[in-house]
Amino acid sequence: MTPKTAVILAAGLGTRMGGRPKGLVRVAGREILYRTMHLLQRNGVERFLIVTNERYAPLYREFVERNGFNAELVINPEPEKGNGHSLHLAKGHLSERFVLVMSDHVYSEAFVAEAIKGNGLIADRRPGWIDVDEATKVKVKDGRVERIGKGLKEWDAVDTGFLVLDEGIFKVTEELENERNGDYSLSEVVERAGLPVTFVDGFGWTDVDTPEELKRARKMLIFTAVKGTGDGFISRHLNRKISTRISYLLVEKVTPNQMTVVTFALGVLSAFLTLVSLPLAGILYQLSSILDGVDGELARAQLRTSRLGGYVDSILDRYVDGSFLALLAYSALKEPLWYLVALLALLGSVMVSYSTERFKGAFCRDAYREVPALRKLPGKRDERVFLTMLFLLVPSGLAVRALFALLAVLTNLRVGATVYFILLNASSFRAGMQ
Amino acid sequence: MTPKTAVILAAGLGTRMGGRPKGLVRVAGREILYRTMHLLQRNGVERFLIVTNERYAPLYREFVERNGFNAELVINPEPEKGNGHSLHLAKGHLSERFVLVMSDHVYSEAFVAEAIKGNGLIADRRPGWIDVDEATKVKVKDGRVERIGKGLKEWDAVDTGFLVLDEGIFKVTEELENERNGDYSLSEVVERAGLPVTFVDGFGWTDVDTPEELKRARKMLIFTAVKGTGDGFISRHLNRKISTRISYLLVEKVTPNQMTVVTFALGVLSAFLTLVSLPLAGILYQLSSILDGVDGELARAQLRTSRLGGYVDSILDRYVDGSFLALLAYSALKEPLWYLVALLALLGSVMVSYSTERFKGAFCRDAYREVPALRKLPGKRDERVFLTMLFLLVPSGLAVRALFALLAVLTNLRVGATVYFILLNASSFRAGMQ
Repeated sequence: MTPKTAVILAAGLGTRMGGRPKGLVRVAGREILYRTMHLLQRNGVERFLIVTNERYAPLYREFVERNGFNAELVINPEPEKGNGHSLHLAKGHLSERFVLVMSDHVYSEAFVAEAIKGNGLIADRRPGWIDVDEATKVKVKDGRVERIGKGLKEWDAVDTGFLVLDEGIFKVTEELENERNGDYSLSEVVERAGLPVTFVDGFGWTDVDTPEELKRARKMLIFTAVKGTGDGFISRHLNRKISTRISYLLVEKVTPNQMTVVTFALGVLSAFLTLVSLPLAGILYQLSSILDGVDGELARAQLRTSRLGGYVDSILDRYVDGSFLALLAYSALKEPLWYLVALLALLGSVMVSYSTERFKGAFCRDAYREVPALRKLPGKRDERVFLTMLFLLVPSGLAVRALFALLAVLTNLRVGATVYFILLNASSFRAGMQ
Repeated sequence: MTPKTAVILAAGLGTRMGGRPKGLVRVAGREILYRTMHLLQRNGVERFLIVTNERYAPLYREFVERNGFNAELVINPEPEKGNGHSLHLAKGHLSERFVLVMSDHVYSEAFVAEAIKGNGLIADRRPGWIDVDEATKVKVKDGRVERIGKGLKEWDAVDTGFLVLDEGIFKVTEELENERNGDYSLSEVVERAGLPVTFVDGFGWTDVDTPEELKRARKMLIFTAVKGTGDGFISRHLNRKISTRISYLLVEKVTPNQMTVVTFALGVLSAFLTLVSLPLAGILYQLSSILDGVDGELARAQLRTSRLGGYVDSILDRYVDGSFLALLAYSALKEPLWYLVALLALLGSVMVSYSTERFKGAFCRDAYREVPALRKLPGKRDERVFLTMLFLLVPSGLAVRALFALLAVLTNLRVGATVYFILLNASSFRAGMQ
C-alpha cells in the first residue's frame, strides 16, 4: 500500500534564494512544491501536511488554495531550531504510513514513482544532479542507517530528502525533544531511529539552495523529460542534444502550445521555401524537426503534458511533412513517373505514423512498447527529415528524384515491416483482449 | 449484480432440423449454443448448466470440452415430458440469481447485453425476427406475467426464451412436480410464479425450429452486425444494403480474413485499372468499397471480431486509396500544378482517417462517440470512393482534375473541422484524464 499522506518540511528560513520560501520558488514554470505535491498525488497521496513558520504561512496558504490541494498547515513557531522539531509537530495529525519530503528538493516524475514504493530513508548510490560534497551522506549497515551526515568519510549513498515513515518515528522525536529541548535535526532522528534504507539509484532529483542550483534543477527537469520510446536514430544522437538545450533556455518563458505553433509555422515556411531555395528549405525543415521535440520536453518539464496537445502536434507534423514533399515535388519534378514516385513517398511518409498510431487506437497500448522490434526499424520522421536535408544541400534534379525514390521505398517497406512484426507478436499483446 | 450462472434447456427432441440437437446447429459459422454461451460469458456469466437428454449428452459433452466452457451437464431421463421438468432438474445446482435460456434461440450481442440486466421474464413488445403467430405471447398486469401462451388473443409482448431467475422458482416447480407428475411446461411455471416482466424491445433475437427459420436467424445476425458509428452517407444508404446481402450469402463459407484479402486485391486491381479504363477502374473501386464492409459484418456475425483484423484492414484501405489516387494522377494528369493538387488530395485522404484514429490512440475512446458532431462531416471513405466513381464514369481530363481539386479541398477541410470539433469538445472527454 502506498502512503496516502505526505508531510512537507517547509519551516526553514533559507536566505540565499531571496525573501521567498524555497518551496514556492519556481523551476520550469512551477513552484517546487507544486511539482512535488502534484507528483505525489499522481502516485496516490491524497492529503498533505505542510510544516512551515509564521512568516511563510500566509504564502503557503494562498498557494494551497490557488491550486486546490487538500493540505493543512502546521505552524512551527521556532523555525530557527533544527528541522527534527518540525517533523515532531506533525505528530497527532497522522495515523498511518506517510511520506516525508523536503520543500526545497526537486524530484523528477520517475524518481517519485519509484521512491514512494520504498520504506524508510530513500537513498541514492548514483546521484547525478547534486554536489556530493554538500550532500548529506548515509552509511548503511544491514539495510539500515548506521550513520548520516554531511561530513561522513565512508558512506554508501546520498540522502534524497524523501522518506517513507510510520508513526513509530514519533517515539524517537519524543526522546530527542526531551534531551535537546526541541533543537535537533532530521538527520539525528534518522540516525537514532536506525531507519531502513531503500536505494533508488540514478533517477533525477536535486535540492535547491542557491540560484546556481536552481539552474541545475531546471536542467535536470529538461533532461529527465525526454520521452524515450519512439525516438529515431537522428533524434537520439542529434536532435535531442540540441532540443534539450533550447528547452532549457525557454522553459521558464514559453508554453508547449506556443512552441507547437512556432514549430508548425517554421515547418510550413520550410515547405514553401522549396519554391525558392532547396538547401535553405532543407535546413529549415531539419531545424523545425529539432524544434519538434521542444514542445513535448517543455510540457513534461512543466507538468503540462496533455493528450490533446500530443494529438494536435501529430496532425500538424503530418501536414508539415505532406506539404514539404508536395511542394518539393512541384518545384523540382517534371515527369509523371516521378510524380507517381512522389505520391507513393508522401503516402508512405504519412503511413509510417499511421501504422503505429492506428495500433494504439486498436489496442490502447504503445506499439513500440508491445513490439520492441519496431524500435529498430529505420524510417522515422527524424531520420527522414535529416535525409531530406542532406539530399537538398547540393540540389539537383537527380538528388531530388533519388530522395523521392528512397523515401518511397524506405517508408512503405517500413510500414510493411511494422505490420509484419505486429502480426508476428500478436499472441503476446492480444492475450486477454477481445 | 448480473448473474454468474446460466441454465440452458436443451433436452427437447426436436425433429424438424434433422437428427442434430438444435443447440448444436450452426448459424453464421457457429453453433447456436456457442453463440449464446459466448455472449453470456462476455456479459459476466462464468458457469453453465446444460439440461439435456441421454441421447444428446455425448454431443453436448464433446461441444463443451472442445470450446473450453465451464459447463456441467444435467440429464433429463424423460425429455418427452414438458420442459418445466428440465428446469426443475437444475434445482440444487444453483445458489444465486441465474439466467435461463433456451438452446434453440439465437440472440444478437445487443439483446444479450440488455436482457441480462433484466429481471424475471424478458419479453419483447416489438419483435422483428419471429413469426408472431407461432410465438409464445405474454399478457402483463402490474409488471408481472398474468397469462402466457401461444393462443392468447390479448397480449402485450412476446416471450424471448430468456429469463433471469432466482431459487424461488423451484418452489413453483416443486408444486407442479407433485400436481402434474413431472409433466408441465416452462410456460406453466412462469404463469404460476407470476414472474416479473422486463421489456427488452426491438433487439435482434429469434428461435429456430425449421431450416427456413435458420435462414431468418442468419439474416438477423448479419443485419444486427452492422457497425453504426463511423458509417458515412453512401455507406448507410447504398453500400450496407448491398454488403449485408453479400455477407448473408457468404457467412457460412468465408472467413473475415479471406474477405479482407479479396477486398484488398480488388482495390489494388481497380487502382491499376486506371491505366486502362477510368470508368471500369471507378466502378471496381466502388465495388471494393462495398465489399470493404463485408469482412467486418462477417466478423461480427461469426463472433470473430479482432482488433488486429481491424488494424490490418485499416492499413490496407489506406493503401488502396493511396495507390488509386497515385495511379489515377499518373494516368490522367500532366501539369505539375495538378500533381500538386493530387498530392494534397492524397495527403488529405489519408489524414481523414488519421485524424480520428490518432484520437483513439491518444484517448482510447472512439472519436465519433465522444464528439458526435464528427458524424455529420462529409468526406468519409465511402463518400469519396463513390464521388470518384461518379467523376470517372464519363472520363475526361477536366473531370479528373475537378475530382482531385474537390478531394483536396473536401478532405483537408474535413481534417481541419475534425480537429476544430475535437478542441471544441475537449472539456467533455478530457474530464478525469491526464
